[in-house]
Amino acid sequence: MHFESIFFEDYRLQAKRKTFGRTITEADIVVHAGHTGDFFPHHLDAEWCKEQPFGQRIAHGTMVFSMGIGLTASVVNPEAFSKGYDRLRFVKPVFIGDTIHAEVTVTEKRDAKNPLYGTVIEHVEIINQHGDVVLVADHILLAKRKQPAAASS
Amino acid sequence: MHFESIFFEDYRLQAKRKTFGRTITEADIVVHAGHTGDFFPHHLDAEWCKEQPFGQRIAHGTMVFSMGIGLTASVVNPEAFSKGYDRLRFVKPVFIGDTIHAEVTVTEKRDAKNPLYGTVIEHVEIINQHGDVVLVADHILLAKRKQPAAASS
Amino acid sequence: MHFESIFFEDYRLQAKRKTFGRTITEADIVVHAGHTGDFFPHHLDAEWCKEQPFGQRIAHGTMVFSMGIGLTASVVNPEAFSKGYDRLRFVKPVFIGDTIHAEVTVTEKRDAKNPLYGTVIEHVEIINQHGDVVLVADHILLAKRKQPAAASS
Amino acid sequence: MHFESIFFEDYRLQAKRKTFGRTITEADIVVHAGHTGDFFPHHLDAEWCKEQPFGQRIAHGTMVFSMGIGLTASVVNPEAFSKGYDRLRFVKPVFIGDTIHAEVTVTEKRDAKNPLYGTVIEHVEIINQHGDVVLVADHILLAKRKQPAAASS
Amino acid sequence: MHFESIFFEDYRLQAKRKTFGRTITEADIVVHAGHTGDFFPHHLDAEWCKEQPFGQRIAHGTMVFSMGIGLTASVVNPEAFSKGYDRLRFVKPVFIGDTIHAEVTVTEKRDAKNPLYGTVIEHVEIINQHGDVVLVADHILLAKRKQPAAASS
Amino acid sequence: MHFESIFFEDYRLQAKRKTFGRTITEADIVVHAGHTGDFFPHHLDAEWCKEQPFGQRIAHGTMVFSMGIGLTASVVNPEAFSKGYDRLRFVKPVFIGDTIHAEVTVTEKRDAKNPLYGTVIEHVEIINQHGDVVLVADHILLAKRKQPAAASS
Repeated sequence: MHFESIFFEDYRLQAKRKTFGRTITEADIVVHAGHTGDFFPHHLDAEWCKEQPFGQRIAHGTMVFSMGIGLTASVVNPEAFSKGYDRLRFVKPVFIGDTIHAEVTVTEKRDAKNPLYGTVIEHVEIINQHGDVVLVADHILLAKRKQPAAASS
Repeated sequence: MHFESIFFEDYRLQAKRKTFGRTITEADIVVHAGHTGDFFPHHLDAEWCKEQPFGQRIAHGTMVFSMGIGLTASVVNPEAFSKGYDRLRFVKPVFIGDTIHAEVTVTEKRDAKNPLYGTVIEHVEIINQHGDVVLVADHILLAKRKQPAAASS
Repeated sequence: MHFESIFFEDYRLQAKRKTFGRTITEADIVVHAGHTGDFFPHHLDAEWCKEQPFGQRIAHGTMVFSMGIGLTASVVNPEAFSKGYDRLRFVKPVFIGDTIHAEVTVTEKRDAKNPLYGTVIEHVEIINQHGDVVLVADHILLAKRKQPAAASS
Repeated sequence: MHFESIFFEDYRLQAKRKTFGRTITEADIVVHAGHTGDFFPHHLDAEWCKEQPFGQRIAHGTMVFSMGIGLTASVVNPEAFSKGYDRLRFVKPVFIGDTIHAEVTVTEKRDAKNPLYGTVIEHVEIINQHGDVVLVADHILLAKRKQPAAASS
Repeated sequence: MHFESIFFEDYRLQAKRKTFGRTITEADIVVHAGHTGDFFPHHLDAEWCKEQPFGQRIAHGTMVFSMGIGLTASVVNPEAFSKGYDRLRFVKPVFIGDTIHAEVTVTEKRDAKNPLYGTVIEHVEIINQHGDVVLVADHILLAKRKQPAAASS
Repeated sequence: MHFESIFFEDYRLQAKRKTFGRTITEADIVVHAGHTGDFFPHHLDAEWCKEQPFGQRIAHGTMVFSMGIGLTASVVNPEAFSKGYDRLRFVKPVFIGDTIHAEVTVTEKRDAKNPLYGTVIEHVEIINQHGDVVLVADHILLAKRKQPAAASS
């Protein structure tokens, strides 16, 4: 983890980074249930899950999202802040023992309301050990500009 | 927590439910950092935060989201599943000692690709003890229909 | 979880409720040891346990009790409070991988010292995936009366 | 923590031991809620608690019990096992910042059904920093006899 | 855990004590990663580890050290305090499922700068279920003397 | 966190790096006690600590060490591995609310037994918000050489 100033102009379209992997454990699911209060049987009742279509316990969607985003948290950019996410989708279930990593691609740059900032969209894919995408989301960053935008919307 | 079958036809537009509250503690932030691997100083370095605009440690966005959604996890509806979220926005910072609750409103019902299901949008607001909305998101549910849609898109 | 006012008069003898299930994990035992400081080898030393009658690590009695009671915590009744428990018994060992749920039956109603309240006994059974009762206890509730008792003891 | 063989005959009536103290933290309550799934506002919602008789968050009864019993877990006696508890009572609320310890007194010895064992009752008191008893319970031990009982009930 | 006054003069060279055992779980590694922020793939990425010389996830060195030292924490000696450790070595990897215990031997006694104290060296060995030493360290204690040293260095 | 191949020849004497800071919380101490089983009153009993020289609870030495070393875990160097630590010293107490960071300096390079490797000593200092060094240790790394040593000892 380190500080690095990255301005709006510095983000390059299609630039891609890939994170370390992390194996999802039963302990992670126990921690997430306790952390959020979501004790749904999909995550915590192995017997009930045996009779469901997926046949076993699955990770919480909010956990795959939080842990996946956590994997990307390696550079503190003091020139940008997170506004939120669009199109967050739970594409496939994540099971105990799966190993996930994140791939982040800059897919869009556009003017922001505030001419001192620009909007950067990072497309996040969380991918398992089989190469399957399990979760996607578009991260919306507001990044400071080196030069104010001429006539932004 | 209990099971309750709620079909597409059962969801009523503008129906609203409000959850219990939960005080955000320093321990929650420590747990979330450890759970996700996000040890950014915004969340964990009280000294550094003193010199930032918000003046103190703030909760992770993914934590406010996960804990807020967790507060809504009280009814297991076997007729629906979560597809994801749209327009997730971190509106205001959440500080140690704040108490949040969630308010969920059914804001949209529309046909889904699969005529056996319908899409239900639940607008989620996470609100602090001052009544300020700190996070919003649109939850996308796919709910089974009692009767298949006539000619869905 | 929701609020619901249930007065002494509302409790019905033999009324029974059954909770969701929860699989006991190795992580739960690690958490309970750390939470309580009880690191006895019965719970934490797999090698030592191999030579004991039960052959494997077992859950702490206080954990089965706390998690079992936790499963019943779904309705906040502002008209009653918990006085304690009688006849708490550890009937059978709980192993890693077992799935427990709770069944709660109102087994007794009687006058309390305070005529504004009545005593309600809820018999709690914690049951594993084989249908075996692993823990029992009698929960003692003091519940407000709608009408004060005429001449209570 | 150490092993020590203590037989039925070795327990002395009125023998008393006192444990170390432990300060109850907000983190302990967060852990207990997550461990058990009991997120009642009495324990987790500081705002709601302000309007209740006790004015602040209180520890879960199951937590005071589990942590109090945990404090007593210092000697592994291979000649005895725990059968359960009687007369467990939540006498006073425990608040964040309170420091509790346990005092354990042998209060009764009696024959058990099995003549190879005897029943020992240890009265447990959990006491706070003001000297107030906050929880009591009678621990029921079955302890091996050096000599079988003559004609036990 | 109990208090016991042990003075410099009381420590006997070659006196040895052996602790309880504890099985290292996947949950322990998850907790340690979250506690310390060390999410290196050696500990958390089962897929990556398959291609490494040890073939599977290994415990953090700091975890084996902390948990091993924790096993020795059974007597509070108010007459001594810990100055640190010398020659801490990670001798062999510790895997999930291994059971470790500690053996502590007094290997040296010498004068300290302060004539009111003496230096005691406890050699700590952490040993797994196969009898292999996995970690060693020399614990440096400063212990109060009953009688000040005559002419210490 | 990223991979970076750093060979013995690449380490430069006196090269220094400084990590992010992290505030030590009461929750961290609770977690460390539960993780290691060390429930000594120095760390967990606020009442007892009031009467000790330091007047308040202090962090475990093993915790300051583990968390301090964790702060340095940002680059995975596949060409080196950790052999252990020398001269680990607990210099000053760390209190709840203190903010620590680590500073790591390459202080020595020498031949190793194996001519394919060299020994690198990194001096680690853990420093609080007042600039006081609270813990020091010498980290011993074995780093692969680009060229085998001519005649190593």
